[in-house]
Amino acid sequence: MNKVQATIITIGDELLIGQVIDTNSAFIAQELNKIGIQVLQRIAIADDEQAIFKTLNNAFNDSEIILLTGGLGPTADDITKPTLCKYFGGEMIVHQPTLDFVQYLFENVFKKPMIERNTKQAEVPSSCQVIMNEKGTAPAMLFEKNNKICIAMPGVPFEMKWIIREKVIPLLQEKFITGFIEHKTLLTAGIGESFLAEHIIDWEKNLPANLKLAYLPKFGMIRLRLSGYGNNKEELHNSIQTEFEKLKHLVKKYLVVDEDVPIELAIAQLLQKHSKTLVLAESCTGGLIASAFTNHAGASNIFNGGVVCYSNFSKNKILQVPNEILNTVGAVSKETVELLAANVLQLLNSDYAIAVSGIMGPDGGTQEKPVGFVWIAVANKKEIRAKSFQFRYDRERNMQHTMVTALNMLRELIVSDCEK
Amino acid sequence: MNKVQATIITIGDELLIGQVIDTNSAFIAQELNKIGIQVLQRIAIADDEQAIFKTLNNAFNDSEIILLTGGLGPTADDITKPTLCKYFGGEMIVHQPTLDFVQYLFENVFKKPMIERNTKQAEVPSSCQVIMNEKGTAPAMLFEKNNKICIAMPGVPFEMKWIIREKVIPLLQEKFITGFIEHKTLLTAGIGESFLAEHIIDWEKNLPANLKLAYLPKFGMIRLRLSGYGNNKEELHNSIQTEFEKLKHLVKKYLVVDEDVPIELAIAQLLQKHSKTLVLAESCTGGLIASAFTNHAGASNIFNGGVVCYSNFSKNKILQVPNEILNTVGAVSKETVELLAANVLQLLNSDYAIAVSGIMGPDGGTQEKPVGFVWIAVANKKEIRAKSFQFRYDRERNMQHTMVTALNMLRELIVSDCEK
Repeated sequence: MNKVQATIITIGDELLIGQVIDTNSAFIAQELNKIGIQVLQRIAIADDEQAIFKTLNNAFNDSEIILLTGGLGPTADDITKPTLCKYFGGEMIVHQPTLDFVQYLFENVFKKPMIERNTKQAEVPSSCQVIMNEKGTAPAMLFEKNNKICIAMPGVPFEMKWIIREKVIPLLQEKFITGFIEHKTLLTAGIGESFLAEHIIDWEKNLPANLKLAYLPKFGMIRLRLSGYGNNKEELHNSIQTEFEKLKHLVKKYLVVDEDVPIELAIAQLLQKHSKTLVLAESCTGGLIASAFTNHAGASNIFNGGVVCYSNFSKNKILQVPNEILNTVGAVSKETVELLAANVLQLLNSDYAIAVSGIMGPDGGTQEKPVGFVWIAVANKKEIRAKSFQFRYDRERNMQHTMVTALNMLRELIVSDCEK
Repeated sequence: MNKVQATIITIGDELLIGQVIDTNSAFIAQELNKIGIQVLQRIAIADDEQAIFKTLNNAFNDSEIILLTGGLGPTADDITKPTLCKYFGGEMIVHQPTLDFVQYLFENVFKKPMIERNTKQAEVPSSCQVIMNEKGTAPAMLFEKNNKICIAMPGVPFEMKWIIREKVIPLLQEKFITGFIEHKTLLTAGIGESFLAEHIIDWEKNLPANLKLAYLPKFGMIRLRLSGYGNNKEELHNSIQTEFEKLKHLVKKYLVVDEDVPIELAIAQLLQKHSKTLVLAESCTGGLIASAFTNHAGASNIFNGGVVCYSNFSKNKILQVPNEILNTVGAVSKETVELLAANVLQLLNSDYAIAVSGIMGPDGGTQEKPVGFVWIAVANKKEIRAKSFQFRYDRERNMQHTMVTALNMLRELIVSDCEK
């Protein structure tokens, strides 16, 4: 098939000193993949004319499409615009519709006076076709060269996302006839990568040539992504669907969800399906689990709230864990997490509760309860299940593993409860 | 000065379909920068032999150092190791110390039987020098070519970070004589990028040639990073220090912190300095603020806990907001956030409280209270300050802006309270 290939270039010194994590590239790659455009490479370079020239030259050799973000701001370190003007030719000119829009934004939205520097946002190379940015002051710009295209966009994720979705994707769909790509993803928990690979080896070996499996391990879960390429959309879909069903059957015991969604969203969907609600008592994860749920729109349908009981005082005051328990078996104990789960469930009159308490590190470990030791309880109105775990990572990873493990325990409880 | 340049290559199909955000590159770039090695570019490519060959060829043209992560796992899509063997020559051989270590891990740590596939982890190209990985089963490998080096590491962040810090950095320091890089960073809030640039334009214009300023805007804050390069460590340090002091003075009014730390850590340090504690009542941010604080080791010194009062029921039941207020002026109101702040402060017997309630979107907005409308209160035992804001972004960004704004309000309260 005729694969259209793209290069994503992100420009900014901050990317090369590691001060900023590049999330733009991942978003752009996702959107391109959905319409069957393959991303060949993602390159991050400095705000540097020579680097931009060289990278553009290389990218034009490899790719039909170059998508570029960053360095379009109004400050002195933002050199992308004049550099593109030099590369593609022409001179800097004022783009009147953009100037009008910038003026409109300052008058009606920002309600601040405009300064000279803001006016500069409306200047573009005469060699480009302007793509209006309705979410900000810096417009996007399209350049053509040898029937290949380069689109430069601002690096602010909010603006870039809007431009990609509303402007760039429709434009690319129209300009490039592409084959089809389809991905199907599922999430497993409770089995290691090697063992999972061994478990499905015969199936994987016999996959049709246009299908490919990838293993994406993260925090004790493994995401399996089955990808296919083809010119016939329906054939591709049927082939990938058939193999995906076989895979689902093979990994049934470990299957969290058969979609590409995070585990907390899979659980929110499960709760919503059964019209159940969740509450939390988080000690060692300190709000991480609550935040994971509320990060998604519609969380209020299933999430009633919770207590971040980070201190013993809060465990006692809000969730009635007796001080004699906290002072004897301690905050990291079966007794404590069971009481936290039962009491937060009752306090907020809900269907399910999670409670966690542990030592996330780097400090606070003892011989008996070392860093990474955690008690997790999940509860409904009839049953409490509590288990201890020993993770062996750094603070962030211990927290993530605690969350994932707690969510998987909750999933098992809901399934045994509602889907038996 | 003699700049040593590095290229970071990350390998994995998952990076090119955007399923995974590349955090490894940012970490590696930070660590290289600290020892004065400049990162020229970061490139993400697929698990594809041709792409790996081509990218290595290009990288060896540009850089003395190539650091490469990913694709070293035990599954079929991990082709980095045989590809490197083909590129650098030699044949695959078993590295006995690694095999011993893998066997040790399975027997004593994982406590699972080893399978054939795990044994493969101990195979390396005969052309490499093995760098032991004490945190996992896949070793790192060092290759030399024309006095330049390429180090391949596993992509699991936990393992890669350990290898970089413990093995790679000392090795690079020894092998490459490098100049010095120094960065000084400060954080501002409450002023836009253009206005800030205008405010410091004269100072910026007169910076010495070896110093450079970068603007890193994020969620209503702007981080200013002053970077310098030089061969004399002390001269460089003095010059950057002098200019940084001038900059601090210029932006005094907007200065959150004069270090490269996140705003919540700056506030935690401020609280700790004055031996004060914080509690939270989070409605619309749903645990985000608690999670930001507890993400950092030592949070328990200043953070007592909080309530994620995501439902009206929880606002009433735990934090005693009267139902008549919730049913009349509503959950998103001055009255509600003031009560939430005052009551959580008292309930958990602490020095400072933050309460937030708003509509984060995409749903739930009304004409009177549209998406992005939020009330924030900060309180100590004597005073409550409440303000409403109208953010105009998507859910994630509205939450982040709410957090940053609340934290900045808290900072102002603490400063006026403790540092007048």
